[in-house]
Amino acid sequence: MKTEIISIGNELLIGQVVNTNASWMAEQLNLAGFWVDRITVVPDEREEIFSILKEAKERSSVVLVTGGLGPTKDDITKDVLCRFFNTRLVFHEEAYKDVENLFKKRNFKVTDLNRKQAELPENCITLPNPNGTARGMWFSKTDDHGKTDFIFMPGVPFEMKPMLLDSVIPGLIKNFRKKTIYHKTVLTQGIGESFLSVLIEKWENTLPENISLAYLPQPGIVRLRLTGTGDDETKVKNQVDAEIVSLLKFIPEYFYGFDDDKLEIIIGDLLHKKSATLASAESCTGGYIAHLITSIPGSSKYYKGGIIAYSNEIKENELGVSRESLVKFGAVSEEVVTEMANRIRKKFNTDYAIATSGIAGPDGGTPEKPVGTTWIAIVTPDKTVAFRYLFGEERERNIRKTALQALNLLRKEIGNLD
Amino acid sequence: MKTEIISIGNELLIGQVVNTNASWMAEQLNLAGFWVDRITVVPDEREEIFSILKEAKERSSVVLVTGGLGPTKDDITKDVLCRFFNTRLVFHEEAYKDVENLFKKRNFKVTDLNRKQAELPENCITLPNPNGTARGMWFSKTDDHGKTDFIFMPGVPFEMKPMLLDSVIPGLIKNFRKKTIYHKTVLTQGIGESFLSVLIEKWENTLPENISLAYLPQPGIVRLRLTGTGDDETKVKNQVDAEIVSLLKFIPEYFYGFDDDKLEIIIGDLLHKKSATLASAESCTGGYIAHLITSIPGSSKYYKGGIIAYSNEIKENELGVSRESLVKFGAVSEEVVTEMANRIRKKFNTDYAIATSGIAGPDGGTPEKPVGTTWIAIVTPDKTVAFRYLFGEERERNIRKTALQALNLLRKEIGNLD
Repeated sequence: MKTEIISIGNELLIGQVVNTNASWMAEQLNLAGFWVDRITVVPDEREEIFSILKEAKERSSVVLVTGGLGPTKDDITKDVLCRFFNTRLVFHEEAYKDVENLFKKRNFKVTDLNRKQAELPENCITLPNPNGTARGMWFSKTDDHGKTDFIFMPGVPFEMKPMLLDSVIPGLIKNFRKKTIYHKTVLTQGIGESFLSVLIEKWENTLPENISLAYLPQPGIVRLRLTGTGDDETKVKNQVDAEIVSLLKFIPEYFYGFDDDKLEIIIGDLLHKKSATLASAESCTGGYIAHLITSIPGSSKYYKGGIIAYSNEIKENELGVSRESLVKFGAVSEEVVTEMANRIRKKFNTDYAIATSGIAGPDGGTPEKPVGTTWIAIVTPDKTVAFRYLFGEERERNIRKTALQALNLLRKEIGNLD
Repeated sequence: MKTEIISIGNELLIGQVVNTNASWMAEQLNLAGFWVDRITVVPDEREEIFSILKEAKERSSVVLVTGGLGPTKDDITKDVLCRFFNTRLVFHEEAYKDVENLFKKRNFKVTDLNRKQAELPENCITLPNPNGTARGMWFSKTDDHGKTDFIFMPGVPFEMKPMLLDSVIPGLIKNFRKKTIYHKTVLTQGIGESFLSVLIEKWENTLPENISLAYLPQPGIVRLRLTGTGDDETKVKNQVDAEIVSLLKFIPEYFYGFDDDKLEIIIGDLLHKKSATLASAESCTGGYIAHLITSIPGSSKYYKGGIIAYSNEIKENELGVSRESLVKFGAVSEEVVTEMANRIRKKFNTDYAIATSGIAGPDGGTPEKPVGTTWIAIVTPDKTVAFRYLFGEERERNIRKTALQALNLLRKEIGNLD
């Protein structure tokens, strides 16, 4: 069985918009057990759309098409569809009612253009679009041998995503999938892909054939995705979960969560449960840690605020770091970062505090403290800890890696109090 | 003349990596005057690569291929190339020397694998790769009628990008382009695409036929790209520049820069030139403004630091905002944001200060102050200004829009002193 994605849109061919739709769809299809064999981008032009449909029909069982629908683009695509599938447009009562209801909610008037959108090809199943006016269309087994299914969806991500998840993938699973599939992703921080692979090599080598492992690295984070396949859903799930229990024994200090967890959310939950509060004193991360924490709705419940002490003057005057430490050890030192963390905690009267001081680059490095040298301190109600890191040479990555490392250190310290 | 892009890589077909390579290439080609007609993604598999090359040869004059090269992937792709172009691999002395030199710089040992990478097809022109070991390959006019050029590049962006800009595009311009093309992009902040289009409608309608306009919106920012084509380079350039002078008269309060300018860079340059300093007091933006400012190398020269006053307690105790203002007007008010900006400037002893206070959402809105309500204040050596905005309902976008608006207000105030 071959599956392919076709994205229609001039904006994708001039580089104005990155084709995140196709990669999101490929990821979701892959999670549901469907391997995508090809992705093609074509312009909003009759002949180009017609010929890619013809090509796809020759080689694939399932063809997912996005774009080319919507009030201003409808004409071309639907015209091509009628020609390609040898059918005609008919007025679709239910589709029109949906548009009316959607517009009532938004206080818009239904126009002739919208009425025209309710004209849909006769020989397809239409898919509801709760977030827009263009319905999806599913043409089943369209070729002479009953081989190819074509599914058309709008290109607006906000409309396409629920349609794929709620209508298309369940339909594909029902019609095409033989086996059950179960995924679970283990999140790690503070270790690179190659070191991680050495650490878990023994475990990886003993994985049964029906469970596969994928490394998904991002700056500062590596995600490990386990995928199990089999006939019995419960059995596969239990098998994957048991493998994860074994895996975690190899990486206790790097593991922080599963699937879509984020460090800033986990910390928020931990603090909220303890009714504890947090403050930050940032130098090299320049507010990025505070930004991550406050990007979470409800963070004002546990995060009181922080000081960005970018200059030594502010470290001294506002945070009360001793001039002696600054002169003797330098701003990027255990002494200074520890003072920063303790002072902000006291000053802002919180339970926990984070502090960072480092050389983000590209300038400011010395032979003793090269670019990437970073100190992080965490203060809890019980103790102060501080660690030194040597990240890389890129400013942006150094800032991001420092922030993630600091959040993970904090997570561990809050967890330790349990 | 038809141009197409082929991206080889399994990682693109499982959604692990978004195909930013293809959209970046499409943008660069478009800027150089080449319209991309199709983008195709295929897996790292012999037969799939062979058949897409065959298809592309039928329809396109220029085919750009990325991926499938590099020390571990070389075998498959080069094998296919030899078969497809009916040629054989020969040892390429210059390519090998390049790898040796690159490795010497990085203190790596050249392995047999790297030596194999210097084996390249006999009948192509090779393209230097200053950032890696896999050379590019350009096969000219390969079909029976001398119609199709195939260009192969590595998939690593860091290696592909300089190769496209330094070797491929200059070659394409020399061989294929008839006219000269000139682009200039005008950057605006603080106005949406549809309002902007109304403002500049009159100007847009008088644009000559050889100059086109593209709207490129991002959250909080709209870029306007003008593209001129013609026979005489200087003439086209002058023509576009003159149109921009007219355009700017319609949007003086929204325009902030050209092409790749960023507000945080412009502000940094302005402050640096004046030897002036800046501090920030952020509530709703939670450190994001500080993060943008400190993402610029050298920002420690003008940015002293800031306070993230997320809770009212910190606004009162650390910034010295009066309790009376907080109780009487609320934290999201002209009075409080003005006090925040003035206090941080005094406390941190800087020339300029920014302050923000708003309801980022999703909670915290009231009928009088719905989610998205935001106050921004700027203090200069001469005066204090404060403005109220009503952004949208999405937390992330509200934070971003507030930060960009604050930076642009600051830019105007610094500029005013000139």
